[in-house]
Order: sequence, then structure tokens, then C-alpha cells
Amino acid sequence: MKAVVIGAGNVATHLSLALQKTSATIIRIYSRSDENAAALANRLGTEWTTQISEISPDADLYLFAVKDDALQEIIPQIPVNKGLWVHTAGSVPMDIFTGYTERYGVLYPLQTFSKNREIDLQTVPFFIEACSPDDEKLLVELARKLSNNVQTLSSEKRKYVHVAAVFACNFSNHLYALACKLLEEQTIPSDMLLPLIDETVAKIHTLSPLEAQTGPAVRYDLNVMQRHTELLTNPAMKEIYQLISQNIHNENNSYQQTLNAKR
Amino acid sequence: MKAVVIGAGNVATHLSLALQKTSATIIRIYSRSDENAAALANRLGTEWTTQISEISPDADLYLFAVKDDALQEIIPQIPVNKGLWVHTAGSVPMDIFTGYTERYGVLYPLQTFSKNREIDLQTVPFFIEACSPDDEKLLVELARKLSNNVQTLSSEKRKYVHVAAVFACNFSNHLYALACKLLEEQTIPSDMLLPLIDETVAKIHTLSPLEAQTGPAVRYDLNVMQRHTELLTNPAMKEIYQLISQNIHNENNSYQQTLNAKR
Repeated sequence: MKAVVIGAGNVATHLSLALQKTSATIIRIYSRSDENAAALANRLGTEWTTQISEISPDADLYLFAVKDDALQEIIPQIPVNKGLWVHTAGSVPMDIFTGYTERYGVLYPLQTFSKNREIDLQTVPFFIEACSPDDEKLLVELARKLSNNVQTLSSEKRKYVHVAAVFACNFSNHLYALACKLLEEQTIPSDMLLPLIDETVAKIHTLSPLEAQTGPAVRYDLNVMQRHTELLTNPAMKEIYQLISQNIHNENNSYQQTLNAKR
Repeated sequence: MKAVVIGAGNVATHLSLALQKTSATIIRIYSRSDENAAALANRLGTEWTTQISEISPDADLYLFAVKDDALQEIIPQIPVNKGLWVHTAGSVPMDIFTGYTERYGVLYPLQTFSKNREIDLQTVPFFIEACSPDDEKLLVELARKLSNNVQTLSSEKRKYVHVAAVFACNFSNHLYALACKLLEEQTIPSDMLLPLIDETVAKIHTLSPLEAQTGPAVRYDLNVMQRHTELLTNPAMKEIYQLISQNIHNENNSYQQTLNAKR
């Protein structure tokens, strides 16, 4: 399988390195940035270009791993060909390809990709969608070479997976940032929080997050919550504290009612 | 060292089991709940009571591991003695003991404790405070038998550690709960999120959370953020989405300015 990769960012890098390890040959990297394109092409030992006109028309697979806005710009500029066009974006429907080519699909890896971090793709869930059963089969087979966790999912449902990922990854990471900031302001090393964060995550491998919840909000300990909000001088942090605490209490109430109804 | 443990919840259980493995002998468990008191005492092979009057007056250590409100109620009911009285609460100042006994302090483990989960206390940070240098030394030595990460910290600073822990643990866990809910509503198994959550945490072992951030909010991708908020029908989730996304953007702006100033 000959593949062209459009994009040279984190997702493009991780996926093309993994694809190259399977039977695929990456014949060219396209990126608007010559620096990124060259860097990734060098790692793969392949060609690169910053010119859409230089994208080879005879590849089997065109993997679009670019920002959502760039996707919309680039797709219409590529001449129709016989290859399978695939994007990797959680929140972009498959029909972004409609009218621009005949064979298309989506390969969405549910993971956060960063520079200089090795990721074991084998455990990463891949969500597949395609314009035809044949291309779906082809994409599922391709994804199974990368991961043990592959399933098909519609564009409609994929949107919810993407927003869930924002809560589970980006937002939880931001709470770590705020927690670290609170410690650093007191000149306490923020890595003190790591055993706590590790255990919080370890717990949800065996309990649901609703079962695993601890702390003043789930106990609805108003005294502690009051003292905490008084301590937070940053208005945004105070607001986040109050909003999430109230929501923990409300979600816990619903959860307890469900449990009682089952008894 | 003879110790009495006041409380039979998660913190009391984990700490008394760990203390018993060092040189300490737990001579009695007190809890308002006879069920909890008996359960913990049985695990330790010791006595238990629900009567404050039956708390032995001749122990070396009185470890108060009860809810913050209960602490305020129980302390004044225990007759002064020669033992060292110690509580384990993050947000309660040490001076809660003032006037009730002469030797007192705080032993605060920065961790989330749950039933039926083994915790390796060796890596857990313990924050120590005491009314005198001698008792501080004694408590530090005791804590060092439990953990490799022991330091002294004032009540004033400990409050910030506690609120930071709420952000890093309780609040991040709640975001997992919301993310799981979003998937379950689409009949997608919520354990699909685990590799993503694991990697999010693995990243902050080598990068700061500000460096590690990914996603639409830090890219300030207003199109994606707009589509996500439209998708969230639950008003509280929509509000959490908007508040945290805006705060990610603001904190990232400050962070980038700091980086630029350093260059």
C-alpha cells in the first residue's frame, strides 16, 4: 500500500511512523510548513513537499492529519483520484469529502499525541467510518495492523467521543495546571501532586468515576467548600471550584437515587 | 509506641494498618459507628469502642482520622492526657487542638484513600506540623517509617495543598465521570477513554501540564468549541465546557507571554 500523508504535526507523525512499520510505504509528506514536512520525511526516509500540486495522484491512501480548518481548505484543492481519502479528526463529519472524491473515510485514534513521546498504538481505540462497505473493510484491516481496539462509528457518534475526550484529557490536564499553580504560588514543588493524580486514575480502572469520587463536594461538606472558595483569590478558579463542586453534588445525588431505585 | 485511632473510615484504615506494620501498636479504635469500629479493629486484631469515655488515657499517640466536623465535636470531649494528638485533615488548622491538650500536631497524607484499594504509602507525600520541635521530630520520624516523602508544612500552606488536591483529584475525577456519561449516552463503552486518560497523566510526569496541553481550547479553535457547546444539551456541562475552555486559553496566553519574556 502506497500512502501520502497530508500534515506533519503530532498525529501525522505518530500515524505515519506506525503505518510505515506495517505494510504501508509512505511515498510523500505534504505540509504547509517546509520545516515540519522535511523533519517528518527525514524520519520516514521519504519525499516531502509544500506544494499541493506535487502530491502524487497514484497513492492507495491519502491520510489527512491536519487541523480541522486546514482540512476544509486542502480537500477541495486536491484533484480527484482513485485512492482512499481518510481524515483523522474527531469532530469533522465524513461528508467533508463529499463531492471532492469518490472513496473516503475516517480513521480517528482516541489519544493525545505529543512531540517526543512514544505512544503504544496497540491499546489506542481507533474509530472507523467509510463511504462504502469495501472501504470500511479496508480501513478496519489497516487499523487492526496498528491497534487491537478497532471499531466502526458514525460521524454523529464520533462527535460525542471527541467532546468526551476534551473533558477527559484537555480539561483534566487543565485542572492539573491549576493545582500545580496553587502549589507553586506557595513555593511547594508541584510534583508532590503526582502520586495523588496517579492513584485517582488507577482507581477508575476498577471503579466507575462516580463510585471512586472522594472529597468535600461529594460529602457536601459546606464548611470546607466555603473555606476553599475564600482561599481562591483568582476569580476564574473560584468560579470553576463552585461550578464543579455543585455539579459533583448534583451528579452524586442522581447516582445515589439510581442505586436506591435498584435496591 | 501505643496508639489510639479515632475514626474507622478510609484514612483511619490505611494509616492504622500501615502504623501497625511499623513499631506502633494500635491499642484501640474509636468510631461512632460500631460496624466500622469493629471491622477495622478486627483487621488489626485490637479492641474497639463507640464510647469516648472508653478511649485509653495512656497511649503515646492519638490519631484523629475523622471528618472535619467530627474533629471539632470529638476533640473537646477527650480528657487531657500526655499523649501526642494528631489529626490528618488538609484544611483544618493545627490550632483546633489549642486549649484541649498540650501536645499536638498534624500528619497530612496527600492521597485519595478508598475502601478495598491497597496504597503504597512509601511514595505518598506526608506533610507534618507540630506544637513543639520535639513533637515535630517525633512525628517526622514516625512519618518516615511510612513514606519516603515527608516534610514539615504550616497550617496556612497546608490549606493550599488541600484545595490543590481537590482540583487535581476530585475535580479531574468528576471530568472523567462527565466524559463517561457522554459516551454511555451514545452506548459507547466508557472504558474506551482509559488509554487517553492514562497517557494524559503519563505526560505530566515529564512535561508541565501547561506544556502538555492539547485540544481545541489551547489552539483557540473557535469552530470546534462552538460545535462542542452546541452538542452539550446539559446546561451544567455546557457551562463547565465554556468556563474551562476560556480559562485554558487565558492561562496559555499568560504562559506564552512568560516564555517570550524569557527568550
